[in-house]
Order: sequence, then C-alpha cells, then structure tokens
Amino acid sequence: MVDSSFYKKKGPFTLKQISEKIECNLIGDENKIISDLASMDEANDQQICFLTSKYKNFYKISKAGAFIISEDIQLIKDKNSLISKNPHFDMAIVASLFYPESEYPKFYFFESDILKHNKSSKICPNVLIHKSAKIGMNCEIGNNSVIGPGVVIGDNCLIGDNVSIYFSIIGDNAKIYQGVRLGSEGFGFIMKGNSFKKIPQLGRVVIGNHVEVGSNTTIDRGSIGDTIVGNYTMIDNIVHLGHNVKIGERCIIAAMTGISGSTSIGNNVIIGGQVGISGHLSIGNNVKIAAKTGVMKNIDDNSVIAGYPSEKISDWHRNTVILKKMRKK
Amino acid sequence: MVDSSFYKKKGPFTLKQISEKIECNLIGDENKIISDLASMDEANDQQICFLTSKYKNFYKISKAGAFIISEDIQLIKDKNSLISKNPHFDMAIVASLFYPESEYPKFYFFESDILKHNKSSKICPNVLIHKSAKIGMNCEIGNNSVIGPGVVIGDNCLIGDNVSIYFSIIGDNAKIYQGVRLGSEGFGFIMKGNSFKKIPQLGRVVIGNHVEVGSNTTIDRGSIGDTIVGNYTMIDNIVHLGHNVKIGERCIIAAMTGISGSTSIGNNVIIGGQVGISGHLSIGNNVKIAAKTGVMKNIDDNSVIAGYPSEKISDWHRNTVILKKMRKK
Amino acid sequence: MVDSSFYKKKGPFTLKQISEKIECNLIGDENKIISDLASMDEANDQQICFLTSKYKNFYKISKAGAFIISEDIQLIKDKNSLISKNPHFDMAIVASLFYPESEYPKFYFFESDILKHNKSSKICPNVLIHKSAKIGMNCEIGNNSVIGPGVVIGDNCLIGDNVSIYFSIIGDNAKIYQGVRLGSEGFGFIMKGNSFKKIPQLGRVVIGNHVEVGSNTTIDRGSIGDTIVGNYTMIDNIVHLGHNVKIGERCIIAAMTGISGSTSIGNNVIIGGQVGISGHLSIGNNVKIAAKTGVMKNIDDNSVIAGYPSEKISDWHRNTVILKKMRKK
Repeated sequence: MVDSSFYKKKGPFTLKQISEKIECNLIGDENKIISDLASMDEANDQQICFLTSKYKNFYKISKAGAFIISEDIQLIKDKNSLISKNPHFDMAIVASLFYPESEYPKFYFFESDILKHNKSSKICPNVLIHKSAKIGMNCEIGNNSVIGPGVVIGDNCLIGDNVSIYFSIIGDNAKIYQGVRLGSEGFGFIMKGNSFKKIPQLGRVVIGNHVEVGSNTTIDRGSIGDTIVGNYTMIDNIVHLGHNVKIGERCIIAAMTGISGSTSIGNNVIIGGQVGISGHLSIGNNVKIAAKTGVMKNIDDNSVIAGYPSEKISDWHRNTVILKKMRKK
Repeated sequence: MVDSSFYKKKGPFTLKQISEKIECNLIGDENKIISDLASMDEANDQQICFLTSKYKNFYKISKAGAFIISEDIQLIKDKNSLISKNPHFDMAIVASLFYPESEYPKFYFFESDILKHNKSSKICPNVLIHKSAKIGMNCEIGNNSVIGPGVVIGDNCLIGDNVSIYFSIIGDNAKIYQGVRLGSEGFGFIMKGNSFKKIPQLGRVVIGNHVEVGSNTTIDRGSIGDTIVGNYTMIDNIVHLGHNVKIGERCIIAAMTGISGSTSIGNNVIIGGQVGISGHLSIGNNVKIAAKTGVMKNIDDNSVIAGYPSEKISDWHRNTVILKKMRKK
Repeated sequence: MVDSSFYKKKGPFTLKQISEKIECNLIGDENKIISDLASMDEANDQQICFLTSKYKNFYKISKAGAFIISEDIQLIKDKNSLISKNPHFDMAIVASLFYPESEYPKFYFFESDILKHNKSSKICPNVLIHKSAKIGMNCEIGNNSVIGPGVVIGDNCLIGDNVSIYFSIIGDNAKIYQGVRLGSEGFGFIMKGNSFKKIPQLGRVVIGNHVEVGSNTTIDRGSIGDTIVGNYTMIDNIVHLGHNVKIGERCIIAAMTGISGSTSIGNNVIIGGQVGISGHLSIGNNVKIAAKTGVMKNIDDNSVIAGYPSEKISDWHRNTVILKKMRKK
C-alpha cells in the first residue's frame, strides 16, 4: 500500500507494543507481529487496519492480522482486536508509529548532481533535486524548483520555476508551470480533546502523460493511496485538488476550481472556473459543470449542471426567471 | 503582431509547405510566400489568418495573403485558401510551425550579471535575469525571482521574492509582490480526436505605471495580442487574469477574483473578492461588482451588480427578501 | 503600537512640520513634539491619531497629543488639532512620514549565516535569512525560502520551500507549507483625485503554536496592529487572510477561503472551502460555515450557516426546495 520509495517504514511491532501506544484494550495474541498498516479491504495477515461501525461487515471478511475496532462493534473472538473509543484517531497514532518521518522530506541532504547522470535534460542552477529522484530524458526544470526524494519524472517534461514536487510520479510530456505544489500535505486530522492529531499522509500524486498543471495550483498527495490526474487532462492556474482526488482522462479544469478530498471525476469532464466540489463524491463521464457551481452530490454521466447547490443547468436558469417574475409582482 | 523580442520566428514558408503540415485542400498559389500569422483584421499580404463561418464577412475584406477557412464558407476564387475541417485547430498547428519555441523560455542560458550594468537597482543573490531583459533604475528584486528573456521593467519598481516574470512589459513604479506569476501560459487548446492541441501563446503581459499586484496572483500572457493592466490599478492577492484580459486604469480588484480570457474591464471599476467574470465580456467604466458575484454578460457603465448570475444589486437583495417571505408561508 | 523590530521610525516632528506635510489647518500648539502615530484608543500624549465623525466621541476621551480630525467634527479648543478634508488620507501621509521604509524590507543585506548560531536547525542552501531574524531550535527550512528582518520563529517549526515570511512572529511547532506568503502587503489605500495613496502597512502577522498553514496561502500583515492566527488552528491550501484578521484557537479553514480585512473569528470555528467573509465582521465561537458561503454580517456563537448571502443552513436548504416547487408549477 504505502510506497517505500517515499516513506521509510519502522517496525515490525508486536500487537502488545501497538496497544501500549494507543491505550486500547487488546483481545487476542499480544505477540502477533504486525509489519504495516493497510485499508480493511487490502490488509493481509501481517497488517493492521481500522474499522468503525459503518464498516463492521468488513470485520469478518478482512484478512487483516489485527483490527482497531470501535467499541460498538461486536467482538469476533478469533480476530486480534484493539478496542478503541476513536479508531480513526488511534489509527493515525499507529500510522505515525510505522512512518514517523512521513510529514516532510529532509531537505538538507538534497543534491543537485542530476546533470552528471542525464545530459539531455536542462536544469537551472538553483534547482534542488534529491539523489533518489529520477528525471527522464529531454526535461527542462526552471530556477529554484525542488524535486523531493523518490520523485519520478518521465521524458520530455517541462517543470517551471519555483515549483515544489514531492511524493509524486509524473508521466511523459507533462507540463508543470510556475509555482505549482505537487504532493503537498493533505488536510486531514482528527480532533481529540483540545487539539488535533494530524493523520499521516502516506500516499502519492500520480500524474499521467500529456497533463498540464497551471501556475500556483496545488495538488495534495493521498493520505493512504494516491491522488491521480489522468492522461491529457488540462488544469488551469490556482486550482486545488485535495488528497485522494481522482481525475480521469481528457478533463478540463478551469482556474480557481477546488475539489475536496476523495472525490472522483470521470473522463472528458469540463469544469468551469471557481467551481467547488465537496469531498467523497463521484462525478460521471462527459459531465459539464458551469463556472462557480457548488457540487454537493454525485453527478451522473453526461449531465450539465450549474448553481449553488448544483442543479441541472436548465433548472438553474429557470430559478433566475422565477425570481425575476416574482420581483415584478 | 507577435513581439520578436519574446518569440523567435521560423520561416518564411510557401503555402504548399503550410498545407502539407495541416493536410488541407489548397486553392490558389501554392508558391505564395507566407512570413507570419496574424488576426483577420490585421493580416497583410505576407501573412496568413483563419476564418470560421461566424466571421465569413472578413474573407472579402481582409488583406491577408492566405486564409485557413472552414468548409462551410463559400470559396472566393482569387483568395489563397486552405479549406479546413477545423480552422482553429489548424491555425494552432501553423502557429507552432512559425513559433516552435513559444511554449517556454530556455532557462539554462540565463545570466545574473545585471548588476554590472545597473548599479542603482538592488538584486538578490539567487535571482536569475535573462541577458536580454531590461531592468530600470532604482528597482529592487527579491530572492529567487526569475526575469525571463525580453522582459522590460521600468524605473522604481519593486519585485518581491519568488516571483516569475516572462513575456512582460512593466511600467514605472509598479509593485509585484511575492509569488506572483506574470506571463504564465494561457489556458487555450483545441480538442481533436482523443487529445488536445495547445494553442501557441504568442502575446505579452503589459503592466502600466503605479500598478500593484498582490502575492500569489497569476496573470497569463495573451495568445495573440496582450493581456493589459492599466495605470494605477490595484490587484490583491491570489487573483487570476486569463489571457488577453484588458483592465483599465484605477481599478481595484480584491482577493481571489478570477477574470476569464479576453474579457475587457473599463476604468475606475471596483471588483470585490472571489468574483468570477466569464470570458469575452465587456464591463463598462465605473462599475461596482459585489464580492462573490458571477458575471456572465456585458455590464453597462456605472452599474452596481451582485449575485450569481449577476443582477442589479437591488434586485439581488430583493431575491433574498422574496425567499424569506416564501419560507414564512 | 508599531513594533520597532520591524519598522524603523523617523522623527520626532513638531506639529507644525506635520501640518506642512499634509496641508491642514493647525489649531493648538505648533511646537508640540509628536513622536509616533497610534489608534485613537491607544494614543498617548506624544502620539497623533485621526478621527472621522463616526468616531467623534473619542475626541474628548482620547489621550492623544494631537488629532487629525474631519471638518465636520466640532473643534475642542484645548486639543491640538489638524483639520482635514480627508483624515484617513492625511493619516496615511503622516504614517509614511514616520515610517518611510515601511513598504518593503531591504533584501540586499540579507545573510544566511544562521547555521553559525543554531546547529539544531536544518536550513537549505538557497534560503535567505535576515541577520535580525531569530530561528528556534529543531526547525527545518526548505529551499529558496526567505525569512525577513525581525521575524521570530519558535522551536520545532517546519517551513516549506519557496516560502516568504516577513513582519511575522511564529510560535512553536508550527508548519508553514510550500509557497506560503506570510506578512504580505495589506490591500489598503485611499483614493485622492486620480490616484491612490497606499496606507502604510505597519503591523505584523502573529501565528500561534501548533498552527498549520497550507501551500500557496497568503496572510497579509496588519496595517496598524496585527493579523492573528490562534493556537492549533489548521489552514488549508490557497487561503487568503486580509490585514488585521483575527482567527481564534482550534479553527479549521478549508481550501480557497478568503477572509477580508479586520474580520474576527472566534474559537472552534469550522469554515468550508471557497467561503468568503466580508471585512470588519465578527464571527462567534463554534460557528460552522458551509463551503462556498458568502458571509456579509456578524454571526452569533454556535450558528450553522450557508448560502450567498449567508443564512441559517436550514433556511438555505428550504430556498432550494421552494424554488424546486415553483419550477413545477
């Protein structure tokens, strides 16, 4: 699940060690060795996942070696379980245990000797490229840009100046313009008492081929899993994509649009400027969304929508006509 | 039309060479020499322009040496014509033929020896200034900023740190704050089949005297022709101006406002925060636009507007009152 | 009032010298020595403040050594007074007189020798840190960032790459991500005749402990007084906070939200994405504001609001239902 070229893992830990860290009641084998965390549907016998009552059906099905479960889930005796008042919070603690350095690359051992290895790419003097990053052929990287550990950039890519790229895999022929921030920190945290626990952001940004990303746009990396932009998708200036957003192929996203975490967008979708789309939604293929629309629900294929909250564009225009008539009364 | 200090031209080409590039049927003199492209109203006998049926009247009037015309335009025999299924797309191909390096300045031959020539300006150590750029007297340029080829900056200008300036002409006494991107790539491309052809962006950004541009704002250069900001206009943080936008004098544009391509704004216009204005519109003089307004039509001089879609501000307030009354029923 | 570690003061000046600068009629002691400016409620006998008729009650109460008053305020004989056609404008002139270099730090004497003094912090090679800035223990500062004169950063802070920090005091354990601009220029100016007089921005940004600020966010410094972000507050990417905004503790501000100058927000407030809040408002504690809301009035504690203009969220949903019913008629 977690890409080891980006995130260095600690451990393994025994279930007892984990339980002491999160102060949960442990049912099962306290000597069970856990080597990583994963989502409930992907966890194997060496991995731990968490479950809230909403997903209690996974408790029986999942192959995970251990579970952090909420108190209101009925215990299954032969599953190694940590009973938690706040499984989401405790999972964040466990994630920090396995990946204590997830929060930020360590810059100070950066190197800029990429030119020794790759004479076909042109890299400006003040660029910092981590020694573990890979740059393809015929790339150009503008002044002051930073390419973090483990980043992979394909062939024929153009990276503007003052760009920051971390935790990202970029295809061929992509153009990332000035001031773009790829792989920035997802906005995920859990409140407990009077403060927040940051959820470790352990995913990546995966950018397809022939993608363009406009100036000063930010694309957060996934928390677990990836934020994805499909081939040929065009993104304008000052756009924000939250963690784990998935954008299909050949989409057009105009300036100042924001898409919240975990929303997925189909192929050939056209999104106007200053559109906002809530998190955890599914937008179909060939959808057209008018500028400034606020989308708060799933949208079917081929829809054309507008308004805040979003409606069929014809309904939205009729609202304007209705209000105009009423003003005349 | 295209400023040769920013864009190096290839060619000339014969009409035959051009027609082979775009696979159009050629009617007329295949040996005709074409040295550049231009818009239909400005093209001369050495230049090529394109025409869709919407602008068919220009076919007779225009002095262009050759035309890329859509199939539904009736042929005029004594005009050199390339008959195209998609004139806009084919013109983009021709633009790339004449200006193959339009897409990005080549950084790697940048120089920072500006201080040798201009002792009155203060330039930070990590600034890169292209040898063909001109910096006026008494300027200050902050750390890590990039001044691209051909850029002209007037006297007494303050350029913040981490600023990117390309393809731009800036007047005197301007202030360009941190993280601003001037002359970034316009968001113009044409779909054909399963991919996009980028329209070469061959224009400039022209900034007047006494203009201020707030942090992390982006101003795209024109595609053909210029993006213009008039004297004394004040632009706040995180504003986006699309390609070929024209802003008059003494305008105030508050934070997070976006103006789409080719829209023109008069003088003394006050625009609130998070306003969105569609492309190809004309906004008059002395207009006031409330925060968060979505403007989708032309606006007369002296109007005061609000809402999404925008209306007279008094009408917008009455909508709120009407809905409130209806909720009570 | 004005923090001398950020702004170097000129003067003192006699009231006569001040009056000659702003061409106001002087009533009172022309030899009175004035050493600074202040707000009407904080000014002491050595300081000058300004008063428009809206605040005329302060004229009697204030301990200021001199006043710039608007013409329609009735003169109090034993108060040193400068009678002004435009007190706000004239105060801006006086502010520039006392603080002529307020507009921008002078970069060119920056130094990056911080590592000599603080071996526990890791600072990238292209970072510029002013010699008067103070960096705490165990900090990390990414490539190309700029830390301006007088800035104070606490312990255990993480500053991303390409960050600009001026006129700011930052607590412990704060995270300031890539491309953030702290202490940028407030958007304040006064029109006079055919141009604008910039209001000198003489305040600071004060960031609490455990605060996070997302990529490409901008926070302007105060004009007089500070822009404040309280402990544990989480700010997402591409957010804009205007000058003198005050944010309480444990607030969550999602991406692309903008808050205009001088608005104050309570504790535990949750603000969705793309929200806009007008200036000079007061938002209570525990308020929840839905994404894309446009707030134009004060909001009581514990309110849940949505819409443009903002309403109780239940009212906003009912508007949608009402319009749907009317479309069916």
